[in-house]
Amino acid sequence: MLSEQQAATATDLAQWYNTVRQRTLALTQGLSAEDMQLQSMPDASPTKWHLAHTSWFFETFVLKPHSVGYRVYDASFEYLFNSYYDAVGDRHPRPIRGLLSRPGIESIFAYRQYIDNAMDAVLAASPTPELAAVVITGLHHEMQHQELMLTDIKHALAQNPYAFDPPQSLTAQAQNNDQTATAEPSFSRFDEGLYCFGAAANGFSYDCERPRHRVFCHGFELSDRPVNNAQWLAFIAAGGYKDPAYWLSDGWNCRLNNQWQAPLYWKKIAGQWFELTLTGYQPIQLSAPVCHISYFEADAFARWAGCRLPSEFEWELAAQHLAIQGNFAESQRWQPQPSTANAGLQQLYGDVWEWTCSSYAAYPGFTPEQGALGEYNGKFMVNQYVLRGGSCATAQAQMRPSYRNFFYPHQRWQFSGLRLAR
Amino acid sequence: MLSEQQAATATDLAQWYNTVRQRTLALTQGLSAEDMQLQSMPDASPTKWHLAHTSWFFETFVLKPHSVGYRVYDASFEYLFNSYYDAVGDRHPRPIRGLLSRPGIESIFAYRQYIDNAMDAVLAASPTPELAAVVITGLHHEMQHQELMLTDIKHALAQNPYAFDPPQSLTAQAQNNDQTATAEPSFSRFDEGLYCFGAAANGFSYDCERPRHRVFCHGFELSDRPVNNAQWLAFIAAGGYKDPAYWLSDGWNCRLNNQWQAPLYWKKIAGQWFELTLTGYQPIQLSAPVCHISYFEADAFARWAGCRLPSEFEWELAAQHLAIQGNFAESQRWQPQPSTANAGLQQLYGDVWEWTCSSYAAYPGFTPEQGALGEYNGKFMVNQYVLRGGSCATAQAQMRPSYRNFFYPHQRWQFSGLRLAR
Amino acid sequence: MLSEQQAATATDLAQWYNTVRQRTLALTQGLSAEDMQLQSMPDASPTKWHLAHTSWFFETFVLKPHSVGYRVYDASFEYLFNSYYDAVGDRHPRPIRGLLSRPGIESIFAYRQYIDNAMDAVLAASPTPELAAVVITGLHHEMQHQELMLTDIKHALAQNPYAFDPPQSLTAQAQNNDQTATAEPSFSRFDEGLYCFGAAANGFSYDCERPRHRVFCHGFELSDRPVNNAQWLAFIAAGGYKDPAYWLSDGWNCRLNNQWQAPLYWKKIAGQWFELTLTGYQPIQLSAPVCHISYFEADAFARWAGCRLPSEFEWELAAQHLAIQGNFAESQRWQPQPSTANAGLQQLYGDVWEWTCSSYAAYPGFTPEQGALGEYNGKFMVNQYVLRGGSCATAQAQMRPSYRNFFYPHQRWQFSGLRLAR
Amino acid sequence: MLSEQQAATATDLAQWYNTVRQRTLALTQGLSAEDMQLQSMPDASPTKWHLAHTSWFFETFVLKPHSVGYRVYDASFEYLFNSYYDAVGDRHPRPIRGLLSRPGIESIFAYRQYIDNAMDAVLAASPTPELAAVVITGLHHEMQHQELMLTDIKHALAQNPYAFDPPQSLTAQAQNNDQTATAEPSFSRFDEGLYCFGAAANGFSYDCERPRHRVFCHGFELSDRPVNNAQWLAFIAAGGYKDPAYWLSDGWNCRLNNQWQAPLYWKKIAGQWFELTLTGYQPIQLSAPVCHISYFEADAFARWAGCRLPSEFEWELAAQHLAIQGNFAESQRWQPQPSTANAGLQQLYGDVWEWTCSSYAAYPGFTPEQGALGEYNGKFMVNQYVLRGGSCATAQAQMRPSYRNFFYPHQRWQFSGLRLAR
Repeated sequence: MLSEQQAATATDLAQWYNTVRQRTLALTQGLSAEDMQLQSMPDASPTKWHLAHTSWFFETFVLKPHSVGYRVYDASFEYLFNSYYDAVGDRHPRPIRGLLSRPGIESIFAYRQYIDNAMDAVLAASPTPELAAVVITGLHHEMQHQELMLTDIKHALAQNPYAFDPPQSLTAQAQNNDQTATAEPSFSRFDEGLYCFGAAANGFSYDCERPRHRVFCHGFELSDRPVNNAQWLAFIAAGGYKDPAYWLSDGWNCRLNNQWQAPLYWKKIAGQWFELTLTGYQPIQLSAPVCHISYFEADAFARWAGCRLPSEFEWELAAQHLAIQGNFAESQRWQPQPSTANAGLQQLYGDVWEWTCSSYAAYPGFTPEQGALGEYNGKFMVNQYVLRGGSCATAQAQMRPSYRNFFYPHQRWQFSGLRLAR
Repeated sequence: MLSEQQAATATDLAQWYNTVRQRTLALTQGLSAEDMQLQSMPDASPTKWHLAHTSWFFETFVLKPHSVGYRVYDASFEYLFNSYYDAVGDRHPRPIRGLLSRPGIESIFAYRQYIDNAMDAVLAASPTPELAAVVITGLHHEMQHQELMLTDIKHALAQNPYAFDPPQSLTAQAQNNDQTATAEPSFSRFDEGLYCFGAAANGFSYDCERPRHRVFCHGFELSDRPVNNAQWLAFIAAGGYKDPAYWLSDGWNCRLNNQWQAPLYWKKIAGQWFELTLTGYQPIQLSAPVCHISYFEADAFARWAGCRLPSEFEWELAAQHLAIQGNFAESQRWQPQPSTANAGLQQLYGDVWEWTCSSYAAYPGFTPEQGALGEYNGKFMVNQYVLRGGSCATAQAQMRPSYRNFFYPHQRWQFSGLRLAR
Repeated sequence: MLSEQQAATATDLAQWYNTVRQRTLALTQGLSAEDMQLQSMPDASPTKWHLAHTSWFFETFVLKPHSVGYRVYDASFEYLFNSYYDAVGDRHPRPIRGLLSRPGIESIFAYRQYIDNAMDAVLAASPTPELAAVVITGLHHEMQHQELMLTDIKHALAQNPYAFDPPQSLTAQAQNNDQTATAEPSFSRFDEGLYCFGAAANGFSYDCERPRHRVFCHGFELSDRPVNNAQWLAFIAAGGYKDPAYWLSDGWNCRLNNQWQAPLYWKKIAGQWFELTLTGYQPIQLSAPVCHISYFEADAFARWAGCRLPSEFEWELAAQHLAIQGNFAESQRWQPQPSTANAGLQQLYGDVWEWTCSSYAAYPGFTPEQGALGEYNGKFMVNQYVLRGGSCATAQAQMRPSYRNFFYPHQRWQFSGLRLAR
Repeated sequence: MLSEQQAATATDLAQWYNTVRQRTLALTQGLSAEDMQLQSMPDASPTKWHLAHTSWFFETFVLKPHSVGYRVYDASFEYLFNSYYDAVGDRHPRPIRGLLSRPGIESIFAYRQYIDNAMDAVLAASPTPELAAVVITGLHHEMQHQELMLTDIKHALAQNPYAFDPPQSLTAQAQNNDQTATAEPSFSRFDEGLYCFGAAANGFSYDCERPRHRVFCHGFELSDRPVNNAQWLAFIAAGGYKDPAYWLSDGWNCRLNNQWQAPLYWKKIAGQWFELTLTGYQPIQLSAPVCHISYFEADAFARWAGCRLPSEFEWELAAQHLAIQGNFAESQRWQPQPSTANAGLQQLYGDVWEWTCSSYAAYPGFTPEQGALGEYNGKFMVNQYVLRGGSCATAQAQMRPSYRNFFYPHQRWQFSGLRLAR
């Protein structure tokens, strides 16, 4: 697949555009019109809405302002598929996106095709660098929604006890109780210093990753691999979910109110733990990174383990010289994979997003984008925490050392895990 | 169409079964798989769920107990499509029926066909009177759900501002400001006496309509037609929605909390009132019965008009010797029709359900059905109010003088109106 | 104590006024300023508020309109101590009555004295019959609030685990497991007929008790005593709180949401049941009427026992020729007392309010009072159920055969019990 | 008053103890037993509870573990007056602290006296440095609660429209529309550098202020005075509360849900703005710092003004060499005072707490206290934002450059304001 650097020429950009847009469509394989309408909570959106909204993005920020003579596909879509851009206008309330049976999925597909045709014309006409930049933003935006399509449909289908075929002889399957899983993780050491963080000037990045700036880091150690399911089972067994001493006060209340006893999607059947995957229930893999945990749980685990969560800068320091490779969405496994024994610092990229202790905040000198796109990141900089590194549902093409994802500390439906620091 | 009296023979019953089942299917015309999945509030259910649940009813109460060798279509359906029968087992929570994308609509249609095939066999084999009685109950049950299918999809599509084609020159259309609309309604007088009410021994009835029993009625007068939209506009103009003096205390709080200013589905566009119908927005018809009002509004209107709501017995006294004809679902207009001038007592049946002041309660000597069907009516006898007469969405075949419908006083999504008494 | 009949002369009325007002004050014995400010739920009010509101009643409906030259004590009180009279003006929101630390209790006592002085003058001046009628209404109103003062302070102090002295050797105390408690209750039989119900023309009554009118009653049997605690323990032991088959659907949801497992104020300590009384925890008395139950529980018990709740007319038929005597507030025991063995129909009056199956509704021909007092009863006639007979916290002087009390079916903080019918 | 440094000897500590404890009592002047019981929201506590809880602190952490032969005053107090220490045991639920009419205020005063007597004995006996450290913590803890007593009673009395005497000719009073108020504020410049922050080794500090550590700060400018009411009125006039462009997304939702249009306690009467103070309503003082604003409002204002909030380190850098003086609680004015013209950097200490953009988080190497006191700060380090500098309700003796206060971004009932940075 083309990276955005390779997309410097108009031809490349057109090709990349088609690649990304096709991948979005490919994610609808196996989903019915009914599946694609599901919305199981206000935080999540229907597949159908994602399909339309990502197209609305190109229509709103590329075609309407920049394509001479462009005719809006359907005026109602401007209302229905605006996500949160106050500057663009009113919008359909987020919690009832699942009530949009009309337009039907066929109309949404037609809308996508209409936008793609119009975009092809724009991209064929050698867009200016400014316009190309907006298109590239639109493609990164679409890759973000590809990940949400996976996590949202997983959450939606999970509400239906009969969405998946019943597990066949699941309990008979032995857990991979290998040495990797239970081995004490090793830590890599990093020295104190004044380091540079954030996105470099060249290449794509979101406004919230800029400007590149200096931060003083104290010396620290970082675990060579994410916390795995074997460790999490030990936490459960040690009463980790029952002792408020390990928990933030808000976290403990959240745990009580939601009666959390294990990560989201975990289920104990006949004494054995299973987890729901995008292909149904599977036995817990001991040496795979724990997944679908909240910040509150990650923080409690770290305290129980006598460690802490790393800051986003500590994570970035460890990751910034590593190759961006790993278990990403392109593998289409959409499930964290086991760690490798004795492999040194691993899985920083891919598998699970790693909660950091950093509240999502503006970098010194932060300036939002001009216009409506200025609402992309800045207005969410409160009460959310930064996650780093991407997951098994993240497009690899989207990843950078400086990439900052962010969610509320109670949220668990993303492929979120943790790595210990001390 | 056959009445249940005509269905006395097995052949007739089989034929009637097919008629009712076909009519249910016919109601899905024009609805997509996505439309049929919509659930806009816990009170309402998806079309798809109604289709399945009415089949589940026959499977559970006829086929499983009475059809030798019957094989359950899908064990999961017993959980998914049980409505509220505790005696039958656990069930999928009502508020998230809209999250059932699986089974898909095609599976539901196949399920219906499977049930129909099995029922054909049962009905061909000369069922016992006891079994025939359960089948007839199932058909009445299905007709009730036909009405809910209409009211529920209306409510669901109403949440989508673009579900219907935009009204074309609606405001140009003149309102039928005829004399019928604004004429002072006449009242019919009924003398005091000890009367018999409730279902007769022969013919189908629900347990809650029995036993037939004596009630003493004081003399009263009943308006010859339901309150119409012209009267309701006068109520609005007189500040009826703004003065607590007309309202029950709970009703006033309900009005404040929900900011009611007009019946459900009414909308003022450029100074003119419109109402949403199953075919989109239409100008208010002045001489048609007001519809989609709550008990609270009905009661407030009656007090404002210096009258009161009739009791369910007063209604029944007036209706019991009238022919059961009117604007029912069979007409497929699904919208209350204007009253006729100088027609005497009219529209008791059809058009709109009429709120009575009677709390839904057991008749003296009431005995619920045996078994799970005993949950059909009795357990809802608290805090609901009786409506009588059927609406434009009610099957005529379902109607009897003794038929008791019931809803909570705040509910408005049924085709509910009122008739004044004094 | 004087009855209202005896209060026909001005002297008598003045004397009765003083008696009732003094009794209200007497109820504050043992309560601190802090106790009197407690409001534990929106349904209940602080003692202090009751003291002021009952005075506001005389100020608003007697002194301001009828006492020439009367000067309002404090204009702010008109806002603070109006309960729900929309016609009188705006008012302090009910749920935050407990936040009124100012005026302090001393001001409230001074207010009462000021009102009493002004009322003495009015009453000394031979009030017209019309004015006397309002005064008498005010006294009945005050007696109603005397009962609420008891039930509200009981509920408030119950929220504080250390409000009462610890029970001393409570568990050692033997329960009065006498034969009365466990004896099968006998039933009295009443014949069908057209009977008259409601308040007679002479003597005080509320508008909702009028007009006296005919109701046809079918033959029925009524238990000779209220359901007692021994029976309730049997209900609990039989799983009455665990089987939805006995419950109304709304009742079952209410039970689940509130996790009811026993009447309000019951507590199991070391295997023995206790109940909170106004003097602290006491062991359950087996032969005393069960108390502090909701309509939902009463209805479930009756169904479990193969009986039903009586209608309000059935109760009135049984009670209307009995002497109005029993365990009323005047005894100052404020706790239901055990039944007597073989005593025939007993305890219809006093001890516990008896839930009936009658929804609180207007009698045929009901006309509310003129003016603001018209809001006294009529606007509450929805979704509440009638209780009859008075309790151990009701003033005997307030009781009549036609007296209708009413509460929501989920409410339990009144001294409410039940008597079986069949 | 003695500082904690002066309290190095036992005599000094005893004297300081008495001073702080007496000041707490002094804050109850003018409050009735009823006032002291008020709890107007779960975030706030009754005065009475503060009085008891601060005593419970000494009983629990000093007397019970360290005073030989100490007899607990009342075992129930251990349950009633524990705030949030899970390690100490169960506790009375915070939202219903206002329902504790018993023990009465006289018992609470007696409890305080009992504790003081026991503490006098402890302090007279030359406590070990470790014990002295806990006592000093208890005094700082008590000073924190002194501030909460003021803010909580202000909030409680504000719910009562008649708690204060009516304002007399308030509107006639001219606003101090002086030049100071509307003059463009000047900014002080600070250079980038690696600076040390946090509490020094000697002297009292909370665990969350430690360890002292290095942070790299970029160059910045800080306004010489807090944002004042004249500026805030300009923000309101410019539509600051109506344009989502200035607001964080969560902030805008919070504003909508709570219908904020001005700071808490502001009220427009006849076209003029007033604010509620602890002595009643006063006209807005234009040159006084704006107060009672949330983080969300502070952030929106800063964005509107083309600036930002400072980080807590920027604030500390500016403040660390300034004398700790200003308008503190000792002045007993309990209201922010106007700024002085041309005075350079001013009012960093006192007047209003200044919101910073720093999420409340652990410093590198943070270690909570041992034992239950470890719950003091660490478990609140999520979703709260740091405020610095103290307010007009803060004890001066409590203030340090490193002092970190923290609240949720929606909270407004503290004396919270802001200072701009850029």
